[in-house]
Amino acid sequence: MSILLLTSVPREEEAMWLNSLRASLPKEEIVLPDQVTNNGSVDLAIVANPPQGILSTLPNLRWIQSLWAGVDALLDDPTLPEAVPLVRLIDPTLAGSMAEAVATHVLALHRNLPRYAQQQRKKLWVQHELPLASERHIGILGLGEMGLASAMQLTQLGFKVRGWSRSLKSVKNVQCFSGDEGFAQFLQGLDMVVNLLPLTGETQGILSKPLFDQLPKGASLINFGRGGHQVESDVVEALNSGQLSHAVLDVFSREPLPEDNPLWQHRDITLLPHVAAPTNPRTAVQIVAENIQRYRNSGQLPKLVERAAGY
Amino acid sequence: MSILLLTSVPREEEAMWLNSLRASLPKEEIVLPDQVTNNGSVDLAIVANPPQGILSTLPNLRWIQSLWAGVDALLDDPTLPEAVPLVRLIDPTLAGSMAEAVATHVLALHRNLPRYAQQQRKKLWVQHELPLASERHIGILGLGEMGLASAMQLTQLGFKVRGWSRSLKSVKNVQCFSGDEGFAQFLQGLDMVVNLLPLTGETQGILSKPLFDQLPKGASLINFGRGGHQVESDVVEALNSGQLSHAVLDVFSREPLPEDNPLWQHRDITLLPHVAAPTNPRTAVQIVAENIQRYRNSGQLPKLVERAAGY
Repeated sequence: MSILLLTSVPREEEAMWLNSLRASLPKEEIVLPDQVTNNGSVDLAIVANPPQGILSTLPNLRWIQSLWAGVDALLDDPTLPEAVPLVRLIDPTLAGSMAEAVATHVLALHRNLPRYAQQQRKKLWVQHELPLASERHIGILGLGEMGLASAMQLTQLGFKVRGWSRSLKSVKNVQCFSGDEGFAQFLQGLDMVVNLLPLTGETQGILSKPLFDQLPKGASLINFGRGGHQVESDVVEALNSGQLSHAVLDVFSREPLPEDNPLWQHRDITLLPHVAAPTNPRTAVQIVAENIQRYRNSGQLPKLVERAAGY
Repeated sequence: MSILLLTSVPREEEAMWLNSLRASLPKEEIVLPDQVTNNGSVDLAIVANPPQGILSTLPNLRWIQSLWAGVDALLDDPTLPEAVPLVRLIDPTLAGSMAEAVATHVLALHRNLPRYAQQQRKKLWVQHELPLASERHIGILGLGEMGLASAMQLTQLGFKVRGWSRSLKSVKNVQCFSGDEGFAQFLQGLDMVVNLLPLTGETQGILSKPLFDQLPKGASLINFGRGGHQVESDVVEALNSGQLSHAVLDVFSREPLPEDNPLWQHRDITLLPHVAAPTNPRTAVQIVAENIQRYRNSGQLPKLVERAAGY
């Protein structure tokens, strides 16, 4: 049996993945689509933005391993075979990288960096009052691996941290809320909201006017989830009215963000090109290789994506 | 006996200090210069940028308490009485605030925030490679209270940290260097240098071409010490040649920085209006009050400034 590597990433990047995977799994036959002579011989697929329509042509596919942590795009593919188990990348170094990104931008907003940058352009020497970190309330939407790591990093830096998730979690020094019934209480009095939710039918468009209106005037937004979480026009409107004072956006409904999108030039937006927690090929290949070796040795599947939940 | 509050800060700020000090030391008579009827009755002075020539007119002055952590300006005053012990503000919350400022700007540079901000202005969607924090070497000049707290915060965030001080220190997970003989080794291979030294005759102008030339090409500079530490023209030259890739400057030889100073508009400088670790009046007053009560009760002086060393 062989393993199919199925991506739509640039050729060079695909070759890098192929070579690393082959080096880490020397006993496996790992192939690209044009090297498959018999569709029935493929029992595993490793995918990164896979082109539609191919996975459903593999009759003996046992499970699919994604190289990305988020599988929303994959689940949106109507040709994805329904019965085949799906595994997403769960990489602790990825959670650490996300926690670092969250710490960086929460600190930057806490310390008024966007405001001081605007002052520098105007040659203005004005000092603003600096609250203690323990006087700032930061809310994290989503307490998966990334949300958890981020929440713990922020508590270490002295911030008051709240977390919200679908089912109630318990995290040391983090005030936890869950479900629709906990949502309003979670938002009340937050200085910053950080989105780390998976993109599902339930969370699509969650970063919109109804949420912003429940925050104190002048709160900030950090979206490190998916572009589909935010309603762009609502973000801009909330910034223009002062309901939000700043937004850090790393993800967009279309990426790369088109040049004519007005978000680029908004003075209260920090715009990043999807760099909060990039997949680290070295650790990702190691984790995928371990998943596959464990399966080959014992038949044990890694933790599966719950398709109904979307992650 | 009475306590003289001697400042050149704006009137409102002086009134705030006076009221807070009186509230924390209700048994003391605390006065402003125009309320002193007999110079011989003043035995303590609390100072913040004091005007020159007044302290030397107080024959019974026992010691001087500064409200600032840095006493370089005070020591530069030729009328400062030589025999009177000098105490600077040692505030642990100040060290925490500095450590937070260092973490903020080290993370911002590590995560390429200035570069992404430049790209945003040009509507450029380009992702840059992100090394692990453990692959970045950060050097801290000065291992006093602020340097120590900053070094420990950076190690918690996963960075490789070095420290340099006049006399050798020992700090967990921090590679320590000292004196002239350790300087070149300390600088070798650093990605960022953070200055937290006190300003003394020995450290004046230390952030200049000879130091920059010992760093790898493209290193970054963060100056949270004093303006007198940096040679402005050398910083600009090193940025223009690419020897330094970015500088975060919070302090300047003249503050507020004059509008015609070219540093304001340099694209590779993050310019801050002396806000890294502002004195927190609430905790500062508490510490000063404790110093004075201990002295009144037991005659014990707080830790004194070593004038020859300058801190």
